[in-house]
Amino acid sequence: MHQKPLTMRDVAKAAGVHPGTVSRTLNPLTRPLVNERTAAAVDRAARRLGYSPNPIARTLKTRKSFTIGVVIPDLTNPLFPPLIRGMEGVWDGAGYTTLVASTDGDPDRERQRVEMLVARQVDGFVIATAARHDEVVTEMMAAGRPVVLVNRTIQGSGAFAVVPDDRKGSTLAVEHLVALGHRRIAHLAGPRRLSTGQLRWRGFLEAMDEHGLEVNASMVATAEAYTESEGVTSAGRLLEAEPRPTAIVAGNDLLALGAYTALAELGLSCPEDVSVIGFNDMPFADRFAPPLTTVRIPHALIGARAAELLLERIEDPAATPQTLLFEPTLVVRASTAVPSPPSPRP
Amino acid sequence: MHQKPLTMRDVAKAAGVHPGTVSRTLNPLTRPLVNERTAAAVDRAARRLGYSPNPIARTLKTRKSFTIGVVIPDLTNPLFPPLIRGMEGVWDGAGYTTLVASTDGDPDRERQRVEMLVARQVDGFVIATAARHDEVVTEMMAAGRPVVLVNRTIQGSGAFAVVPDDRKGSTLAVEHLVALGHRRIAHLAGPRRLSTGQLRWRGFLEAMDEHGLEVNASMVATAEAYTESEGVTSAGRLLEAEPRPTAIVAGNDLLALGAYTALAELGLSCPEDVSVIGFNDMPFADRFAPPLTTVRIPHALIGARAAELLLERIEDPAATPQTLLFEPTLVVRASTAVPSPPSPRP
Repeated sequence: MHQKPLTMRDVAKAAGVHPGTVSRTLNPLTRPLVNERTAAAVDRAARRLGYSPNPIARTLKTRKSFTIGVVIPDLTNPLFPPLIRGMEGVWDGAGYTTLVASTDGDPDRERQRVEMLVARQVDGFVIATAARHDEVVTEMMAAGRPVVLVNRTIQGSGAFAVVPDDRKGSTLAVEHLVALGHRRIAHLAGPRRLSTGQLRWRGFLEAMDEHGLEVNASMVATAEAYTESEGVTSAGRLLEAEPRPTAIVAGNDLLALGAYTALAELGLSCPEDVSVIGFNDMPFADRFAPPLTTVRIPHALIGARAAELLLERIEDPAATPQTLLFEPTLVVRASTAVPSPPSPRP
Repeated sequence: MHQKPLTMRDVAKAAGVHPGTVSRTLNPLTRPLVNERTAAAVDRAARRLGYSPNPIARTLKTRKSFTIGVVIPDLTNPLFPPLIRGMEGVWDGAGYTTLVASTDGDPDRERQRVEMLVARQVDGFVIATAARHDEVVTEMMAAGRPVVLVNRTIQGSGAFAVVPDDRKGSTLAVEHLVALGHRRIAHLAGPRRLSTGQLRWRGFLEAMDEHGLEVNASMVATAEAYTESEGVTSAGRLLEAEPRPTAIVAGNDLLALGAYTALAELGLSCPEDVSVIGFNDMPFADRFAPPLTTVRIPHALIGARAAELLLERIEDPAATPQTLLFEPTLVVRASTAVPSPPSPRP
């Protein structure tokens, strides 16, 4: 780390090449144009001298910042770190830096974070916070900014998106419970303003219908947010129904954890009294008491594909919008079991 | 979001002020110099026009990027998101953007990430990856770059650091076990090249000595990394000792989870056969089977204080280095209990 600024000219001299060659070598986009031996010589010279290319100067020249903005609801939701790691793996290799901003699920804060990222001239965005009607994202797309939606999508918007097959996930959950012998299956749904909440709910209704099982109003409760505390409240409502459901399909793993708490508060056991299924297979789901049966989403893979799709979109503004749907799988652990015969209530 | 670039001059005209006033208002460092009513008028005009200040142009003028680099071992370790959230809370308010880079615990990758952040002209660094002898961090400090170490420190280096009182944490763990009646207490230590591994180990030895309890070589196993899989291997070694320890003090919660697995593999129960204590109180530690007794570190608070300390250091290069030590507390859950009488082995 030198105090006196080095230039590409210094590196070129040390490597015995033209300064233009140094520039092409150190720019990830043009590096493939340089032959491998020359590129290696430039790298060695740059390393020996302690030269690092100046991305801010490069921005002014190429009008690109080599920075990508990722907007997520909450870094402390364990779903997002694996997604981000998947993205970084792709962007690191392509010379892009990742700026992560969190919104706490607040639309005003979403707007403010996006404006901050626009001001920093990011080359594109991955948005994990999209609502089904999302003014900020709609504006960004109308303004021609490269955007890829991840995990949550805006249906019919013509957006680029990489998401799990949410309907299919709910189907897997219901089929597993039906096979165990459950009939009174309730749904602890995520917020319906989000595609995940909407589609997992729809998938649940369709799968129940498919098996000729009735869903009355007392068997669906919708959480305001994907949090443990919302899960406790909504599961509490489901457990008041008479007769009580023997199983709960939760909209995600944090809601399922809330259901664990609601059951414990009523002195009920999982899975003996009520089976619970989550959605995501978040880190440590196998460690919970009981270990959580859940619908697994391949997070790192979804992150990586979203990252690749965004690079394609940045390179080619005319690229055709596409939605990649990833197939979920069911991971059976200890929170689901055959239903016990109903015990009479006092 | 306009396509045609707006300038401060446009905002100044709309707000009826001098362009210099707009510049002072929109720069977080000079904003306090502008009176509140004027600042509010500038904000309104900027918002109405859709103007966002250009941080890259601002960088060229002020030689500051209003960006801070945070280097962490691994975003998917649940310890780090709360730390980062704590930092962002402080920096958001001061107009700084956070760039997070992860190293996977690899020193080469640490160097590469730091060089990338230097190239992006970050104004300062928070480093959560420091080893006790850390060439990269030592070089950064020698070069006069603002650096605050968080969670892990380099003792005697004169660094700014915000860390838990690791020795004290081990003392709390040992005292709890001794009070329950344990005597054969083993230590599943973290890597000794890290201050956390070293100090928690020292604290363990001192506390055992304080209680007149012997620690022979078979009662300490040192993990190569703070991971579940390393925890399984090292706990397996501890459990081979004759007579078997009745309790394990783990260097962090992931190692404690590894100990759970090692116990299960041997057909042993926690806490009936062996008590286990973790360190950190990571998210969901209360959800594990059994819920984990652990030493709690105030992560968000540590993050926030590190963020504040870095801003102080950026403002005043002559600031006196300081180490903030945060007091840990013990959270007693279900993984610790009175020791059961030893059962004879075949």
